[in-house]
Amino acid sequence: MSEILSLEKIYAPVQADLDIVGDWLTSVTRVSYVPQAKMLEHSLKDTGKKIRPALVLLSGKFYHYNLDTMLPMAAAVELLHTATLVHDDAIDDSDVRRGQPTINATWNTDKAILLGDYLFATAEEFTTRTGNLRVIRLCAETLQLITTGELNQAFNEFNLNQTYDEYLKRIAGKTASLLAAATESGAILSDAPEESVRILKEYGYNIGLAFQIVDDILDFIGTEQELGKPVASDLTQGTLTLPAMLLLQRYPTDNPVKRVFESPGLKDEIARAIDMVRNSNITDECYKAAAGFRAKAIADLQQLPDCPAREALYNLADFVVQRRK
Amino acid sequence: MSEILSLEKIYAPVQADLDIVGDWLTSVTRVSYVPQAKMLEHSLKDTGKKIRPALVLLSGKFYHYNLDTMLPMAAAVELLHTATLVHDDAIDDSDVRRGQPTINATWNTDKAILLGDYLFATAEEFTTRTGNLRVIRLCAETLQLITTGELNQAFNEFNLNQTYDEYLKRIAGKTASLLAAATESGAILSDAPEESVRILKEYGYNIGLAFQIVDDILDFIGTEQELGKPVASDLTQGTLTLPAMLLLQRYPTDNPVKRVFESPGLKDEIARAIDMVRNSNITDECYKAAAGFRAKAIADLQQLPDCPAREALYNLADFVVQRRK
Repeated sequence: MSEILSLEKIYAPVQADLDIVGDWLTSVTRVSYVPQAKMLEHSLKDTGKKIRPALVLLSGKFYHYNLDTMLPMAAAVELLHTATLVHDDAIDDSDVRRGQPTINATWNTDKAILLGDYLFATAEEFTTRTGNLRVIRLCAETLQLITTGELNQAFNEFNLNQTYDEYLKRIAGKTASLLAAATESGAILSDAPEESVRILKEYGYNIGLAFQIVDDILDFIGTEQELGKPVASDLTQGTLTLPAMLLLQRYPTDNPVKRVFESPGLKDEIARAIDMVRNSNITDECYKAAAGFRAKAIADLQQLPDCPAREALYNLADFVVQRRK
Repeated sequence: MSEILSLEKIYAPVQADLDIVGDWLTSVTRVSYVPQAKMLEHSLKDTGKKIRPALVLLSGKFYHYNLDTMLPMAAAVELLHTATLVHDDAIDDSDVRRGQPTINATWNTDKAILLGDYLFATAEEFTTRTGNLRVIRLCAETLQLITTGELNQAFNEFNLNQTYDEYLKRIAGKTASLLAAATESGAILSDAPEESVRILKEYGYNIGLAFQIVDDILDFIGTEQELGKPVASDLTQGTLTLPAMLLLQRYPTDNPVKRVFESPGLKDEIARAIDMVRNSNITDECYKAAAGFRAKAIADLQQLPDCPAREALYNLADFVVQRRK
């Protein structure tokens, strides 16, 4: 693996356009109803990694790059992502996200539901600005996949009996589907040949899986500062992620994950689970799984035209696995 | 006003197609993840009035009626409506809707949020089946209006200082916008001339306002059986509707609405408010407002081609005002 680059360097081929996407997102906050404007400003503060809009733009760079469709599409995927985060936080009763108080903590759950709905509508409105029915339909289907993945997670809260395949299926829905939609839509809107659309879609899907697995690792090994939220929040919420699943397999009897799932809120057991994951080779094994999806992601990139965007996608695949936050 | 007809008679010109829309909605429940399928079945049970899909179909009858676009559009507006109801009930913590336990009461708030999101996505997916960018965009913008209206309502919970204009603006967003989108999209998809699109849109908008005002009246004068939910649930939730607003104006000092808003949950005061509304001419005044919007709704219908659908729209305008449930 090459040395990890900063996102700033990786995004260089599209940074100027990514800044315009940021302006578009800011424009979303300019609504006449003041309380709504304040909520929008809070939710669209420029604090995230912007991986999804960057993926749209980078994937659009291989053939006919057209800002008229790229910008609304890139803004739409970020809005869709933001909407799901607002609802996720409401569902999990989370207080902090990216080091900032959440919408539900600042206002309340009811208003967070409505703001999320407004953001979904705005995302849809932005996709229509592309004038491309195929990507509009793709976004609708992607939101179906995301919510199905999230529902699956909700129905399996505090359920110890879950397989690796079920885990993969769930993170494919809740995370990989949107990254795949980002790369696929960028390819479609640049009139890429169908084989290139497939390659870019697969790239997005597989780095999406890698991204979520690393997220699930970091939830155990990151610091609260790096994570921008409490450590082991998945475990606390009863979400069985890959590291917890492996911990459970290795110690089937006296196991902190089992105890937390049977009696939610046991802080000592959560701390014990964190320690056990950190002091084992479980994270190595999880990283191996993530690296496998990284390898799948970049396997066919070679077939795409050689250009700075392709280099960026290689580097982004490395970043996704090696990042600390 | 003519004698009120049943919805069955009013819908006659489109009943066969409305039944197909029902089949399409049933098809939405056929997903592979069983818990999700059960939630969808519960939310899409055939218990509502189906006014929105009927409006799409009736509005499409004046020019080039094409089932290929009518059916997905009619299904889409009903899905969009259902999604908003699922979220409304989650927000209001309502236990009962149309005499049935709500999604949030049967499962929980978290799953209701996700099911609503899935239904929004499915509504969007159905609009894309029309292949018509204008109606897709219209639906996205309508969901923005609905959620803005709902946010306004949420921010004004238990707020006594609201004007009639603010009330109208809010019900325009949360209710009239979707009925207007139903009639406008039916007109657009049947290639109606722009002036006819405008007339049908205005019809939907104005009967939407009348519909909501009557809803707000029935919340005070209906029985729990007719309403399918507890009487005066708006007042209990802290939503200042027109009857409550008028009651407040008439008795500015010793007033049950004021007391309930200042100390939510006072059951005796809620009962007193119900009595005072029922035993005054407040409902007459509210009905006068609703009748005014009914008159606006039908004012220009005469300019549309004479056909059974036009007769149905006249009768539906009467139904909306005179209905008991």
